[in-house]
Amino acid sequence: MFSLTVNDHVMIAHSLPNEFFGPAQAMHGATLAVEATFSRENLDEHAVVLDIGEAMSLLDAALTPLRYANLDEHPDFRGRLSTTETVAQYIADRLADSLSDRPHIGIRVDLQENPRASVTYTVPDRP
Amino acid sequence: MFSLTVNDHVMIAHSLPNEFFGPAQAMHGATLAVEATFSRENLDEHAVVLDIGEAMSLLDAALTPLRYANLDEHPDFRGRLSTTETVAQYIADRLADSLSDRPHIGIRVDLQENPRASVTYTVPDRP
Amino acid sequence: MFSLTVNDHVMIAHSLPNEFFGPAQAMHGATLAVEATFSRENLDEHAVVLDIGEAMSLLDAALTPLRYANLDEHPDFRGRLSTTETVAQYIADRLADSLSDRPHIGIRVDLQENPRASVTYTVPDRP
Amino acid sequence: MFSLTVNDHVMIAHSLPNEFFGPAQAMHGATLAVEATFSRENLDEHAVVLDIGEAMSLLDAALTPLRYANLDEHPDFRGRLSTTETVAQYIADRLADSLSDRPHIGIRVDLQENPRASVTYTVPDRP
Amino acid sequence: MFSLTVNDHVMIAHSLPNEFFGPAQAMHGATLAVEATFSRENLDEHAVVLDIGEAMSLLDAALTPLRYANLDEHPDFRGRLSTTETVAQYIADRLADSLSDRPHIGIRVDLQENPRASVTYTVPDRP
Amino acid sequence: MFSLTVNDHVMIAHSLPNEFFGPAQAMHGATLAVEATFSRENLDEHAVVLDIGEAMSLLDAALTPLRYANLDEHPDFRGRLSTTETVAQYIADRLADSLSDRPHIGIRVDLQENPRASVTYTVPDRP
Repeated sequence: MFSLTVNDHVMIAHSLPNEFFGPAQAMHGATLAVEATFSRENLDEHAVVLDIGEAMSLLDAALTPLRYANLDEHPDFRGRLSTTETVAQYIADRLADSLSDRPHIGIRVDLQENPRASVTYTVPDRP
Repeated sequence: MFSLTVNDHVMIAHSLPNEFFGPAQAMHGATLAVEATFSRENLDEHAVVLDIGEAMSLLDAALTPLRYANLDEHPDFRGRLSTTETVAQYIADRLADSLSDRPHIGIRVDLQENPRASVTYTVPDRP
Repeated sequence: MFSLTVNDHVMIAHSLPNEFFGPAQAMHGATLAVEATFSRENLDEHAVVLDIGEAMSLLDAALTPLRYANLDEHPDFRGRLSTTETVAQYIADRLADSLSDRPHIGIRVDLQENPRASVTYTVPDRP
Repeated sequence: MFSLTVNDHVMIAHSLPNEFFGPAQAMHGATLAVEATFSRENLDEHAVVLDIGEAMSLLDAALTPLRYANLDEHPDFRGRLSTTETVAQYIADRLADSLSDRPHIGIRVDLQENPRASVTYTVPDRP
Repeated sequence: MFSLTVNDHVMIAHSLPNEFFGPAQAMHGATLAVEATFSRENLDEHAVVLDIGEAMSLLDAALTPLRYANLDEHPDFRGRLSTTETVAQYIADRLADSLSDRPHIGIRVDLQENPRASVTYTVPDRP
Repeated sequence: MFSLTVNDHVMIAHSLPNEFFGPAQAMHGATLAVEATFSRENLDEHAVVLDIGEAMSLLDAALTPLRYANLDEHPDFRGRLSTTETVAQYIADRLADSLSDRPHIGIRVDLQENPRASVTYTVPDRP
């Protein structure tokens, strides 16, 4: 099993309007350091998991709607809590869409939201 | 699959009294940088794996017996080699105890003992 | 010359309403990973620059007004661009205030705003 | 499940002579920061996955042919593209050879080729 | 005193043909993780040291001749040992050239050549 | 001005027997991640600050008395509080001794004692 991981980041604002979140109910923000991991059983004909340049372009495209965004006003997060977990799944689903023609490539997204906490979402096996 | 990772650290003294351990047989110490990872299939009703504050509190509680401790004199390590692997399992088992009412949450503990070496222990699936 | 550095973080929202800032004019946010460095010529009677616990408390107190804050609505940033540089100076000035009785201790603040960029502010020598 | 990770690095030169690789077709180089992870179900009689010193020696031996090497002229990479993925597999296979008497130990190699990209290879279960 | 640091990287091949360098006399390579630090006494009218985007563009331009380069064949290193120190000075001098109209901005370059070693070059005060 | 930084680590036990140190009065330990920085105005005839191998050897020699040591029983720390600051100065002074024939080389030692705190000691200019 091989995997390739590339990274990038986005800087977003949001609030988490539920008393469960304590002080994070207020409008605040985060730098989300993003890692996207692509995995597959065997390498392609160029002996790579994916071209690094393509991997970075895919991640950049997946992150575009989030760059300098206020998630409270973002149509894709309407009616949803924009927790880091939700954002990780959102990014991973966008990566899965752009790799819909290559379902043998596994996808995982890691988001470090601050130096003390990070989350991961792994896309289920695709048919 | 989602996971949440939070981190903390403890500073312990111990010796490893078996010639297998060479110079580490002597009384020495370590800063153990600890990562606790909680994983589950689906998010809870607040769209998180676990509240970050609760995750940090659980980890803090699991680490309390180890803070500024001399493991050679620690009742929980009596008659056992306090290797980093053993300490990782100890912390993970304490986390599992505190999450005994939520067996669907997976638990893994990573301990970085120095810049060149780290260990991981994953709690087996709980019934 | 000795120095002690401790770290913490805050998660803020803000906008930078000047076309100079391009896409960062929009409401967005940042995790600011903060390092505070305290320096002095000679150690104190306990052979330290400052007690680590006190250093962390000082930094925590300096950061309190910024935790989960929207700087666009923050009274301390009214009429000012809340650039990372400005925030670094704000934190450092608060540290200097809390150390006004110890002017021989130098103060520097480093803010990492994302994995690609950080800023530093060093408080001038205090009389 | 327990694992132990140790790290080291090598500095290699190579080219990737296929237009697929764009500017990386030219002779260039890389510092490969290497992590080797050893995993097993249960600890050994000394309560470790593997002695850290032995783990580092095994990794050092696996890396020896790569230190300050030009992979374009390296007999082990003749006729192959020396992508980071290929190098990861090469290192892991060497580790597997040196642990051929201990097939219950799992092996994974991570190579960070630059601050933005890394690859992983996991050795399949060994009989 | 304020400073801004941005980072990037280049992947180069070279040899160090002098017996002083032992095994590094052979053709090998390095990923050079580069930090460029810009410093000044006071912030500009936008309350920054330098626009981050401009700082990254300046660094990118300074690094362009080094990307995927074989320094042994590079005209700018003809007749010179391309040690990490020399490369740091080369990058810093290019940054100084591009900031020749702003001599009040100090320039420092840090190069991490591997996880165990890094070098720094600080440009002298400019007239 | 040029500098070279190399790193290593030691794992020590100690206590800080003064009520000032709160829970750190107990026997505990630390992994001290050590950075040694050597600086000079101009490069030597091989275009380096110092040979990296020599720098690492010097640091290794300076750290030898501390490896797997219990500082409470260490003759060099008799009657002294072995704070991180004191240990930093101890290492730096040993480096200065081994470079007594090269007083134009500046010396600084950074010790990271845990993920939240580090200290630095800079050797004064040597005659």
